[in-house]
Amino acid sequence: MSSKLGAMETISFARGNPAHECIPVEELADCARAAVERDGATVLSYGPVGGYQPLREWIAERHGVDPGRVLVTNGSLQGMVFLAERFRGGRVLVEAPTYDRPLKILAAHDVEAAPVAMDDEGLDPTALEQALGGGPRPDFLYTIPTFQNPSGRTLSSERRGRLVELSREHDLLVLEDDPYGLVRYEGAAPPTLFELEGGDRVAYSSSFSKTIAPGLRVGWLSASAEHFSRLLILKQAADLHTSSFDQRLAYVYLTESDQAAHLRTICHAYGERFNAMDVALRDHLPPGYSWTNPEGGMFMWVTGPSDLDALALLQRAIHHQVAFVPGRDFFPTDGGRNHFRLNFSNSSPERISQGVSRLAGLCRG
Amino acid sequence: MSSKLGAMETISFARGNPAHECIPVEELADCARAAVERDGATVLSYGPVGGYQPLREWIAERHGVDPGRVLVTNGSLQGMVFLAERFRGGRVLVEAPTYDRPLKILAAHDVEAAPVAMDDEGLDPTALEQALGGGPRPDFLYTIPTFQNPSGRTLSSERRGRLVELSREHDLLVLEDDPYGLVRYEGAAPPTLFELEGGDRVAYSSSFSKTIAPGLRVGWLSASAEHFSRLLILKQAADLHTSSFDQRLAYVYLTESDQAAHLRTICHAYGERFNAMDVALRDHLPPGYSWTNPEGGMFMWVTGPSDLDALALLQRAIHHQVAFVPGRDFFPTDGGRNHFRLNFSNSSPERISQGVSRLAGLCRG
Repeated sequence: MSSKLGAMETISFARGNPAHECIPVEELADCARAAVERDGATVLSYGPVGGYQPLREWIAERHGVDPGRVLVTNGSLQGMVFLAERFRGGRVLVEAPTYDRPLKILAAHDVEAAPVAMDDEGLDPTALEQALGGGPRPDFLYTIPTFQNPSGRTLSSERRGRLVELSREHDLLVLEDDPYGLVRYEGAAPPTLFELEGGDRVAYSSSFSKTIAPGLRVGWLSASAEHFSRLLILKQAADLHTSSFDQRLAYVYLTESDQAAHLRTICHAYGERFNAMDVALRDHLPPGYSWTNPEGGMFMWVTGPSDLDALALLQRAIHHQVAFVPGRDFFPTDGGRNHFRLNFSNSSPERISQGVSRLAGLCRG
Repeated sequence: MSSKLGAMETISFARGNPAHECIPVEELADCARAAVERDGATVLSYGPVGGYQPLREWIAERHGVDPGRVLVTNGSLQGMVFLAERFRGGRVLVEAPTYDRPLKILAAHDVEAAPVAMDDEGLDPTALEQALGGGPRPDFLYTIPTFQNPSGRTLSSERRGRLVELSREHDLLVLEDDPYGLVRYEGAAPPTLFELEGGDRVAYSSSFSKTIAPGLRVGWLSASAEHFSRLLILKQAADLHTSSFDQRLAYVYLTESDQAAHLRTICHAYGERFNAMDVALRDHLPPGYSWTNPEGGMFMWVTGPSDLDALALLQRAIHHQVAFVPGRDFFPTDGGRNHFRLNFSNSSPERISQGVSRLAGLCRG
């Protein structure tokens, strides 16, 4: 009986968790002990607001910026929280669809989130230009150009160039959130907006949640001098600084472990899981469904027939022990009714096949 | 030459840091390794917004509350940030003087901080009653009843009872911040306001920064059901959850190390340091100065002659390589001109004697 119940455990494609199997537990155990033993009192004490200096320098060198412009945050979204706070009551452009947590953060800061359309090549520059054309300049644009959450889409190189041009023409601040960029299992990486633009108008946030471990809560934000001093004040007011211990642990891991090999492990696993999901969707979904084809990241975006109500589908799916996130969660206003997001990083290929098969059964009616 | 320069290193009585020597480095190194090895993937993954459940239960048991009413935060002040956010634009009563960082947090949330007088027995209940008598009810009272920052004062038992009565009579929310309560080197602990009141109107925040290590950034807030669900939403919006790793490390330490013995070590060291400072002040300060006599915590509060300008004194002191915080930083409006705060936890008895001797030389003119 227990094995039957076990077989009907819920298979969740809802949350954006990295695979447990891809967290370098043994290495981090060693690094944790080494970090405390070498310099315990400092590792365990209050530290600078901006972050542990060697970690800031490591991040800065990667991005070719001054370490004094790198703020270590509790995961990449804390940078978004600070920008929302800085522009409280303002207006921000977002991709439609976009990651749901930033939408909640903006709403909590009384910031209007104005949607800009996207397609398979990412944010549509023509739609962006239109959004910039009329009315007051928005306070910033929030974008995830690479392996976007929820769509898995990547902004094409050509559009990246155009977006940078538009940010210059309209003196538009852009927050480029890039937590997934290194988790690429196929294709070549385009330059980041931050690299293309030089960092005057593009602020850049990322984290080690996908490449080391999310439980550490270590991310970062790089922004221009104009914004940086204000961001430091907001960080100090929020929580003094990110855990000294977590920062040091990340630093020891980054500088003393074979991170390249670990990234290859993650990318291989996620590529395999993407393929398992893609194959299962082809095998099981009825006609009228399509989905994106990301070369990395954790998510794909499914578009159903125009009469699909993904929220109603979810309610039935939960009864059948399979979960996903309905599309409407990712739109600031209306939209997404016949879409849903599937996460493929957090389930084994076997569970992916099994879960998609359950889900497809419901889609068939 | 270098030894002479060494002898003139700045001795700082400014920051409220625990003694490096009182951080249990070796034990935490072992606990860190154990935490990762036993349950690495979970320790390093996303966790619940409210906190790591066994840690919440440990805290809840100590305070006799439901674990579902304990929110783990990044240090105790993050609880204050959430209450300030909840009552943005409102009005909060604070002790005068009070800890300077909450004043900055309130200001950042457009919350008016209205001062309530205190004396050697802590917050003055008569002054509180007057503040509650006229005008609209304040959104909450922020108080540090035990070893207050900056004054080192402790609210007397009688006044604790009266404060609880007033909170009931006026339906006043109280935030009792108690980061120092366990760091007592003399005398017996009075009950907390939270214990006296039962937790309906008194919310309670504390942290492991003073008793384990501040670099971990693990604190907590317990509040009534009325406020708790809103606080959870704010925590999720702020940074998802406090570092899973830091929480687990604190839990392993709390449940497997001899914390009582470690607290005795801290209290013994701080008592010795308090005595060194008290003796040095008696030996060196000119007439016209007085200071508080805390039985625990990290701070004492010096009152100079009425014509003392502590900010001007600080400017001279910095040239003479000794530092403190001038009193005016701890008042929401005017006040504190002839006061300053001294930290005694973060310097050895020898450095305390040397630093106070330097400072007293400047006070003598």
